[in-house]
Amino acid sequence: MLTSDKIKIGVLISGRGSNLEAILNAISSGELNATIEVVISNNMHAPGLHVAREHGVPKILTLDALAYASPQEYETHIIEELKSDGVQLLVLAGYMKIVGPTLLSAFKDHMMNIHPSLLPSFKGLNAQKQALEAGVKVSGCTVHFVTDDLDGGPIILQQAVLVSDDDTESSLSHRILLSEQDIYKKAIQLYSEKRLVIDGQFVRILPEGGMS
Amino acid sequence: MLTSDKIKIGVLISGRGSNLEAILNAISSGELNATIEVVISNNMHAPGLHVAREHGVPKILTLDALAYASPQEYETHIIEELKSDGVQLLVLAGYMKIVGPTLLSAFKDHMMNIHPSLLPSFKGLNAQKQALEAGVKVSGCTVHFVTDDLDGGPIILQQAVLVSDDDTESSLSHRILLSEQDIYKKAIQLYSEKRLVIDGQFVRILPEGGMS
Repeated sequence: MLTSDKIKIGVLISGRGSNLEAILNAISSGELNATIEVVISNNMHAPGLHVAREHGVPKILTLDALAYASPQEYETHIIEELKSDGVQLLVLAGYMKIVGPTLLSAFKDHMMNIHPSLLPSFKGLNAQKQALEAGVKVSGCTVHFVTDDLDGGPIILQQAVLVSDDDTESSLSHRILLSEQDIYKKAIQLYSEKRLVIDGQFVRILPEGGMS
Repeated sequence: MLTSDKIKIGVLISGRGSNLEAILNAISSGELNATIEVVISNNMHAPGLHVAREHGVPKILTLDALAYASPQEYETHIIEELKSDGVQLLVLAGYMKIVGPTLLSAFKDHMMNIHPSLLPSFKGLNAQKQALEAGVKVSGCTVHFVTDDLDGGPIILQQAVLVSDDDTESSLSHRILLSEQDIYKKAIQLYSEKRLVIDGQFVRILPEGGMS
């Protein structure tokens, strides 16, 4: 792999950063041809900040949205930080704020999120709990591009996870997280290989080497 | 298997009866410890009527709902036919009518349907088309008990089916149908073994031999 091929990623977090860590590990192992240039947390107590530090992420920021005059100014600052580092792909990894129009338009078609359900089922918070309460026997996770339709952007990859009768929110969340970590790195790698073609609500995945 | 253990099934159809045929085949092969006592179609042109005849189903009826003074009278007639044959479980197999309160209360907790999506996603008609239009990468099928919540009753079994970029409604429907035929017979067999326990929206599946 050529260094020049590596895409530059920015990651937004709010919490433990488990998906951030999985992405960093996939970069270390060579599975993912990318670099994480910057990690931004809206929560100064996010354990994910330590994860970023331990992995030597070059720029780690905490931005308090409430310290800005408006959501637009907050997001404009985020965009400035990302652009100054040449970030091409913005990855949401447990970022617990709604992304506003400012950030959306700056990274349209270049912002991904992961959601712990097979969308369109169980949008919003506590998707695993929603799944258990609905009594489904199959749930899973979804990587999608972020649009102004909350948890409704074009789907990149999904993976099914079986639900057991004795699953708790915790046990199910843990198994889904393992799937999340698997498909998030794959989705980012597909992006880095320019194999994702967005066509309305549909994401076509080009065959390997298809663009070369 | 003892003949006395076989549950008696009634099947409602409207169309080709592909799931009916799969159930009949599972009975023939001994996978399913049940007998189909009666098949009722609301459509006199349903190809599934031939399927029932070829497999020697003892009673095959066509009931035209419009010939009755009310939906209640139509369903009351269905219930009479089912009860006169000792039907324990009512199986909907492509029955294209909404089940009304008369039939629902007569077979509460003893009526199953199959739906070609991973519910709660893509309720209603043309679920496979809905899935394709939503751009999902995983769909599937669901066997559930029938309640007055359309496609929303307690889920018994689900199976995931991968969606390919080049899937058409026809190709996806075909692959989902193969899964339907697989889980429908399994769900009916679980019912026959008294291993399905309904608890609100949740169906617990007892381990094999758990009730003996």
